[in-house]
This record gives sequence, C-alpha cells and structure tokens, in this order.
Amino acid sequence: MRKIILDEKDMPRAWYNIQADMPNPLPPPLNPATGEPITPDMLSPIFPMNLIEQEVSTERWIDIPEEVLERLLMWRPSPLCRATSLEKFLGTPAHIYYKNEGMSPPGSHKPNTAIAQAYYNKVAGIKRLTTETGAGQWGSALAFACNQFGLELKVYMVRVSYNQKPYRRMMMEAWGGKCIPSPSPDTNAGRKYLEENPDHTGSLGIAISEAIEDAVTSKDTKYALGSVLNHVMMHQTIIGLEAQKQLAIAGEYPDVVIGCAGGGSNLAGISFPFICDKIHGKDVRIVASEPTSCPSLTKGGYVYDFGDTAQMTPLLPMCSIGHGFIPAPIHAGGLRYHGMAPLVSKLFMDGLIEAKAYNQLETFAAGIIFARTEGFIPAPETNHAIACAIDEAKKAKEEGRERVILMNFSGQGIIDLPSYDAYMSGKLQDYALPNEEIQKLLKELEQYPKPR
Amino acid sequence: MRKIILDEKDMPRAWYNIQADMPNPLPPPLNPATGEPITPDMLSPIFPMNLIEQEVSTERWIDIPEEVLERLLMWRPSPLCRATSLEKFLGTPAHIYYKNEGMSPPGSHKPNTAIAQAYYNKVAGIKRLTTETGAGQWGSALAFACNQFGLELKVYMVRVSYNQKPYRRMMMEAWGGKCIPSPSPDTNAGRKYLEENPDHTGSLGIAISEAIEDAVTSKDTKYALGSVLNHVMMHQTIIGLEAQKQLAIAGEYPDVVIGCAGGGSNLAGISFPFICDKIHGKDVRIVASEPTSCPSLTKGGYVYDFGDTAQMTPLLPMCSIGHGFIPAPIHAGGLRYHGMAPLVSKLFMDGLIEAKAYNQLETFAAGIIFARTEGFIPAPETNHAIACAIDEAKKAKEEGRERVILMNFSGQGIIDLPSYDAYMSGKLQDYALPNEEIQKLLKELEQYPKPR
Repeated sequence: MRKIILDEKDMPRAWYNIQADMPNPLPPPLNPATGEPITPDMLSPIFPMNLIEQEVSTERWIDIPEEVLERLLMWRPSPLCRATSLEKFLGTPAHIYYKNEGMSPPGSHKPNTAIAQAYYNKVAGIKRLTTETGAGQWGSALAFACNQFGLELKVYMVRVSYNQKPYRRMMMEAWGGKCIPSPSPDTNAGRKYLEENPDHTGSLGIAISEAIEDAVTSKDTKYALGSVLNHVMMHQTIIGLEAQKQLAIAGEYPDVVIGCAGGGSNLAGISFPFICDKIHGKDVRIVASEPTSCPSLTKGGYVYDFGDTAQMTPLLPMCSIGHGFIPAPIHAGGLRYHGMAPLVSKLFMDGLIEAKAYNQLETFAAGIIFARTEGFIPAPETNHAIACAIDEAKKAKEEGRERVILMNFSGQGIIDLPSYDAYMSGKLQDYALPNEEIQKLLKELEQYPKPR
Repeated sequence: MRKIILDEKDMPRAWYNIQADMPNPLPPPLNPATGEPITPDMLSPIFPMNLIEQEVSTERWIDIPEEVLERLLMWRPSPLCRATSLEKFLGTPAHIYYKNEGMSPPGSHKPNTAIAQAYYNKVAGIKRLTTETGAGQWGSALAFACNQFGLELKVYMVRVSYNQKPYRRMMMEAWGGKCIPSPSPDTNAGRKYLEENPDHTGSLGIAISEAIEDAVTSKDTKYALGSVLNHVMMHQTIIGLEAQKQLAIAGEYPDVVIGCAGGGSNLAGISFPFICDKIHGKDVRIVASEPTSCPSLTKGGYVYDFGDTAQMTPLLPMCSIGHGFIPAPIHAGGLRYHGMAPLVSKLFMDGLIEAKAYNQLETFAAGIIFARTEGFIPAPETNHAIACAIDEAKKAKEEGRERVILMNFSGQGIIDLPSYDAYMSGKLQDYALPNEEIQKLLKELEQYPKPR
C-alpha cells in the first residue's frame, strides 16, 4: 500500500488537548508589567473568549464543531504515504511514512487552525480579523479560512517579503483577504516607522504591533496567531490523530515521530497524540528538527520571554534564543522564530521531545532527494523534517533494524521554487549560529525570569 | 460525503481505448508529401514502437503495467469532490462533482500520460527524451516522469515563457530535467532562427522543430508529446474510469460531463469512458469548454491539418482553425492550440461531444467563485470547465431539476497566481475571435484535404 487514506467517517471528531496529560503543568504566561500570571480577561481585547477558554483548558478532548469539520473535509483526512521510493533509494530497512499536509488549498498544515480560529471568532460575533505574516503561509491560510466563514481579513505582511514574494499576497487576495506591506500608514505603529524611514523594509515584530493595534482599536475585530499558543497546537493534533488511525490500518506503530519546528505547531500536530501514548508507557521517540541558524531548542535557554520582538505579548515560558535575535535569512521562513511554543518547550524540558538542528544546505539536499524519489516538492521548512527522517533511516540501515519512521510533510514547496533554484545554482549558504554568538545570547537570557 | 476516495485496490487496472467503440473509424493520419496514410514504421524515428502500437490499436482495454501503476499511486486515485459550497452559493438543485487532478506532484493531469510514456520509452531501451513546452505544464510533468524512470530529458521551452514563467523551469530542474529557451543554439532549426534574430522570442512550432530534430539526430533518444495523439488520450482515461467507480459509490450518474479543451487530453480523460456508455445507450451529455480566442470546435473546420505551425507533423484529421493561426495571449496557455485531438474531433463531428466557448474574463470570474467556495485555486485552463459547469448548474436551477454535473478539475493554479492578480486589478481582457477573422480562417481551410 502506497497511501493510507482514512474514510471521511473515520475522521477524528475531537481535538486532543495535551494539557490533560502533561507530567508537569504548563507555567502560566506572565504580565510583563507586574510579573503576575495573565488572567483570561486580560486577553479578551485580542482574542474571543471561546478561544481563550481553549487556551487554558485542561479537558483532554474538545469536540470539533460540525461547521469546522465540514471545512476540514475539503482536503482532510490527509493521506499518509509510505515513502517506498525514498526507502529504496536509501537502501534502508526502515519504513518511512509521511503525512501529507501539502494537499490543503493553501498548501500547508496552517489551515487546520485557521479554519478553527475563523469559526470561533465568527460564532463570537466577530466580523473581521487581523494578523501579521512573514513569508505568507499563515496569512494565506487565514485568508482561505476567513473567506469560508465570511469574515473580513487584513494581513500586515513584512514589506521585504511583500515585495519579494508576491505569490502569497496574490493568494490571499484570490480568497478576498486584504494584504498590505508593513510598516503601513494605517496604524500609529506603522506611521511611526514610516516617518523614520519611508522605505522601511519592516519586521515581524512591527507587523505584529500593527495587527494588534488594528484589532484592539477597530470595531468587531480580533487578532489571530498561527503558532505558539496552546489552542493552535491543539487544533493541529488532528494530524497526529489521523496518523494514529492510518498507521493502525497499516499494522504499524512508529519508533520515531519527526516534525520541523519553528513556532512548534506542525510538530505538536503530528506528535502530541503519540506523546500521550509515551506518557502512558509506549516506547516512541519524538524529534523536533530545527535550523542551526535559529536553534531555540538545541541551543536556547528555558526562560520567560516575549513572543515578539516589539515586546507587546505577555511573557511566555519558552525555549528561546531571545526576542531580540534576528535570524539569518534562511529560506525556511516559518522556522525563523526566536522561541518555541510553551507546550513544546515544556515537553522538551521534561524529556518527552528530543531536538536536532540542521544546516540549510543539508536540508535542501534532503528536499531534492525527496522530490526525486517521492515526487512532491517540499517546502523549505519541511526539508528539515526530511533531513532528520533520512538520518533516522540511515541509522536503521547501520543497525539492520526495521525502524518505523513517521514524519510530518508540513507543506509543499511550489511557491518556494526560487529557493531550490538558488540551491541548485550554488547560491545558498549555511548560517549555523557560531558558538560565541550563542554564548552571548545565553548570557543575555540570564536576566530573564525563569519558569518554575 | 464531501469527497469520494477510491481504495488503491479499486484503482483501474487497464486504460480504455475508445477506438474499439467508435461508431465511425478514425481517419488515418496522412503523409503530407504523398497524401498517403502514415504507416507505423514511418513514426518509428520519433516514437518507440510500443507507443506506436498503442496509437493504432483498436483493443478496448490495454493493461496498465505494474511499474506505471506504482507511480500513479503516488497521487491516484484522485479525489472526486462534491462541490457543496459552490452548489449552495449558486442556489442550484444540481449536484456538482469535480475530479481533482491538481493533486499530482506537478499539479495537473499531465503526469497520467507522462508516467506512461516515460515507462514505455524506458522498456524500449530509450535513454533520453526530448519535448517542447509552452507555459510549462507538460514539460514539468515529463520531467517528473523521466526522473521516476531514470531517463534524461531535454525540454525546449518557448523563450518568452521561459523568461516570464521561471517557476515551471525551476520545477523541471528540481526533478533533474534540462530546460533551455527556444530557439536555442543546440539545433540547426534553433540556430537558423537565432541568426535571423538573436532575441527571437520563440514559438511552440519552433520548439517542436527543435525537440524533434534533437530526437531524430541523437543516440537512444525519442520525442514525447503531451496531448493530441490517440495514446495520450487513452492514458488519460484513468480519470474517467475512476470517476465512474466513485460516482457509483455515491449512487449517482452524470447528466453532463465537462472538460476544458485545448489539445483535448483532459476532456478525453474524463469523458471517453462515459462516451462508451453513451454509445451503448446511456443518456449523458459531454461538453468541451474552449476559449473564444481559439475556438477550434465551435468555429473551426474539420480538415486534414498539420499538428504544428512548422508543418513537421503528419496531416491529422482535426477540427482546426488552421496551423498558421497564432492565438491571442490568454492566460490559459494550455488551450492556445489551433487544432483538436483527432479522436475528440471525430467524436464531436459524430455528435457525441458538444462544445461551448467562453471569454477569458468570464472564466476568471468563475475561477474566483470556485476558489471562494471550494477553496482550491484552479488553473486558468480549468476555469473554462468551471464556467461551463456553473452554466449547467444555473440551467438546472431554472428548470428546477436535480441535474448531476461531473467536471474535470484539470489542474491547480498556484503557479498561475499572477494571472489572477491581473484579473483582479482589471488588467485582463477578452479576445473573442471576430467573425470576419473566423470567415477568413475558414476560407483558408477550404484548400486543406477533407477527412472521409
């Protein structure tokens, strides 16, 4: 069997909330002004109460509403594919499975939470959402989702990406979303930066400031985030829940589950249901694959840090290399984030998740191997998971063991073809963070509050 | 049920050859020099004998080889989706189904035949293929297929497209294909045009000349074509064969089957199995949807014409507006072809296929409606099928009838997003061929030989 397709009727009907099973509870987010825990009502100007409730819930299962399910069925259950051609190429006895999240309309796993968030805002009476986007994966997923529920959307896209990556902007507009370059003249924050420099190329921090300012100052408007938060991780667990059922059909159970990790949402999505098994005694390894240029798990500290460079968010208990860090311009834009989702960070600190870092060139080499065996061209982020899966498959070969590897194919790379072009013509480089710089960053982190 | 997925074990095991069932036999291709029918051995410098045998076969079923099947299973059986959101938007009692061929690695139906052709060349001992490509859909599908079977590939891409559409070239290279702008300095034909004009923007005719010259003058090399020929139509019938099984699962049978039509391969793919039913008494309509700017079925004549502008091919019995016609620069590049596949043309002349023509703007309007209901962004070619399906659904609404509409979603439009951008910013125009020009073209066709 090359693909294991789940019947629509076997689609999971509830999301898995790992907060019900964690060996140690998640430290709360803190108010940076007071150092006191954030209460739900403090988040209410930004998010609707139904999502805030999910954020703090410790219920194990949360039902997926019918209207969300109906939209997820547009492309879900996603195929679980056996990478037989890749296995043959590697000469490995390992069985490699990949969960293909690239089949969604915007081409990544992001709509799993975008659809849910748009729905919950809709039923809370919200008419309009704002968000920021870097490379544009999240902005396009939210544009698709808002269109499905008749919500208006305004996306603040980092100006340098807006100019360099017009396809993502066009995709948002095809779904009726509004996308403008940030800094923009539409907010106080944006105007301030534009006054300083009319050609300001922007940053994710500035775009977040603009999106939040817009949300809190506009009527019937809230803000939406595509990663990091607990409810986002939970919405993504449908990936792993489907994969569990699909592997059961194949009569297999994974020895190792792999996802690339930027903010943490696709890793959480594929792995949390398996971490539940692990907590209850199953022998399964979970590996996060991150870039050496932005190594929040492998090299960062576990601290209370801001979620954004502009220091607008609460303090979050994260593995971080510091909110002031500006990652090198690797093509895996979705992995250029200084911190890691609090849930993923805590599970990493508790030894339930391992992490490995990869250089840009070896991830593209892995991506080309994948495209030339399995056919699908992966997103640059996904290439990090593939590089890690290939390493695991080689280890299985050395050991002569029939290891079962499950990997999240988080997105397809058609819009990212220019990065492959650059790789193949020798124009890409590695940006592994030098040790001295890591030491400097860790020193700075020492003054941050410590989660307990 | 939103999607009907076929089990891998229920995947069709043979292609359907409509030549076994046609009410009137297909007129043979002619040698332009002698006016005599072309014999199989005259095609052997260009194609391997196993494909030539398929070209002339009248066997009803031809087994799909195991190695081809294994590759098709990478993305097949493709989903049959019920367009419930589109139905609701239109307020139609019709049931609209679309067969999603956009899920293949290159994003269109083209690899269905590319995989088969690469395989048959491989087993015939061929080491290298050549082809031409316009917008690049065919070139990228063949690059994917050649990579799967370890064949070298050289694609001659019309220079203006090569410069304007770099993503397709990058896709070919990601799969290891070689893609160069045509006219190129690598062939006599190319050098001739470059001497006349070093900045020559190229044409599909020139690219065909280069690819064929390369194939006949190089060792172990053949040429491959992505549409028009009988064996290409046959390889695509897997689309309709799957759809028949999927509709049976849904307990439905189509009143109308719709495909866009350029060379004819995706229309043939979805419709030929249903035309077989029709020949045997079933009440089903087949509609080809073509552009008003290149209306070979709705306005052309049924004549013996060259398949290419450079007059290198045999004379083919086609509905054509003449091989000298240069279609307007509509974004549906795959529909900019002067003729129609001989099989589709003959079935059209025998009244088994209807045809309707659409203007560019109304097809993009249909594409936006589709993207904003069903989520997936269609290729500009596919928008022609969608415009036609929407018309049929509106007719069903007027008549208050529960019509079942089956449409081929021939490809996704992510690489074509700039055309949507142009549409949404009011920069697209219609190019309906004026009546006087059609009369002039038809007059010229009068001197062409007539098929009997």
